[in-house]
Amino acid sequence: MSKDIKTRVAVIGGTGDLGLGLAMRLAETYAVTIGSRDPVRAAAAAAKASAASGARVGAKTNQGAAQECDIAILAVPELPSADLLASLAPSLMEKLVISPIVPMLFKDGVFSLSSSGESAAERVARALPASRVAGAFHTVPAVRLARRDEELAYDVLVTADSRAVYDEAARVVSSVGKLRPLYAGPLVVSRLVEGITPALINVERLNKLRSPSIKLV
Amino acid sequence: MSKDIKTRVAVIGGTGDLGLGLAMRLAETYAVTIGSRDPVRAAAAAAKASAASGARVGAKTNQGAAQECDIAILAVPELPSADLLASLAPSLMEKLVISPIVPMLFKDGVFSLSSSGESAAERVARALPASRVAGAFHTVPAVRLARRDEELAYDVLVTADSRAVYDEAARVVSSVGKLRPLYAGPLVVSRLVEGITPALINVERLNKLRSPSIKLV
Repeated sequence: MSKDIKTRVAVIGGTGDLGLGLAMRLAETYAVTIGSRDPVRAAAAAAKASAASGARVGAKTNQGAAQECDIAILAVPELPSADLLASLAPSLMEKLVISPIVPMLFKDGVFSLSSSGESAAERVARALPASRVAGAFHTVPAVRLARRDEELAYDVLVTADSRAVYDEAARVVSSVGKLRPLYAGPLVVSRLVEGITPALINVERLNKLRSPSIKLV
Repeated sequence: MSKDIKTRVAVIGGTGDLGLGLAMRLAETYAVTIGSRDPVRAAAAAAKASAASGARVGAKTNQGAAQECDIAILAVPELPSADLLASLAPSLMEKLVISPIVPMLFKDGVFSLSSSGESAAERVARALPASRVAGAFHTVPAVRLARRDEELAYDVLVTADSRAVYDEAARVVSSVGKLRPLYAGPLVVSRLVEGITPALINVERLNKLRSPSIKLV
């Protein structure tokens, strides 16, 4: 495949650990651009991701990255603000948008989900009604993505309101290491899937495990 | 260990698939009694569990089983009624009570958690304030428990309000096949753990898997 016909992936908020790890890994298959509010930080993260992956990773503002992508990954650490989502909505129309977001709360020594009933993926879908939204990558530890010798033989539960959108997101998941995508149902069950992440973090801390992910057996 | 000093486990509601499977497996280590509202059904289930395990499994009413146990497992298919819990509370005082309960809802083709904010384990603990309550076994498929050739090399997330209660419950979990108990935190995070079960069932149905359980990797 020649460089100029590669599918373009924007990693919005790509300067955090998860975004950086995903950018590195996805750059093996896609034309990846890291987006950030701060273009200087985006450029620094892109330089890091390029060096780690051996492929060129671009840098733009979130807006610029969203505008010039085919697929966007919202690799932001918390639920994106309504303002950010509203500002991205026109650029992301008719595009696949993947939410790995897990809004968490740390209280009395344990992690749990922070928002009340609705999942992050549902809130993103509500704010981006003209996009095709999927939830994925919630349980893939950022530190393992960043280590190129990790083969990432984990299962990734993917939510999406149609099998077609799932299939699109599953191709992105499958491109990363040995991740196996599994269809977990429509966005309405995303909260079950997002809840696995704080459970894993609690188990990690309480049992001295090292960045666990999951496999269905 | 001679028979008469074995720890006594009551499997309350032990006539269902999960209860029967647990009774069979636990009978290798414990003196197990199956409890049921209906003593005739309890006796039939106990006969089945005895035949499958090669150990003698007793049968009683729920009340009788609760009264004469050291550890109770609430293997009921749905959240037990307030009446049932209130009637068991005096018998279960100062005892370890394990809740494998996952209150589920099936709607629009997918499973989710049914009750609103509170987990089954928290509701059980509230109804049994003088018992030591732990949540465990949620993700162990009943059909696999019942097949003796399954080695059950899965991870089991256990919630409990103290490490001491976790340790007690972990010993019960460890006695079953190759199950590995992991401490998942206090009861307040049980909902995260209970939510993994409907997620697994949805994944099983949508991806044609066979009774999946989980492993942390």
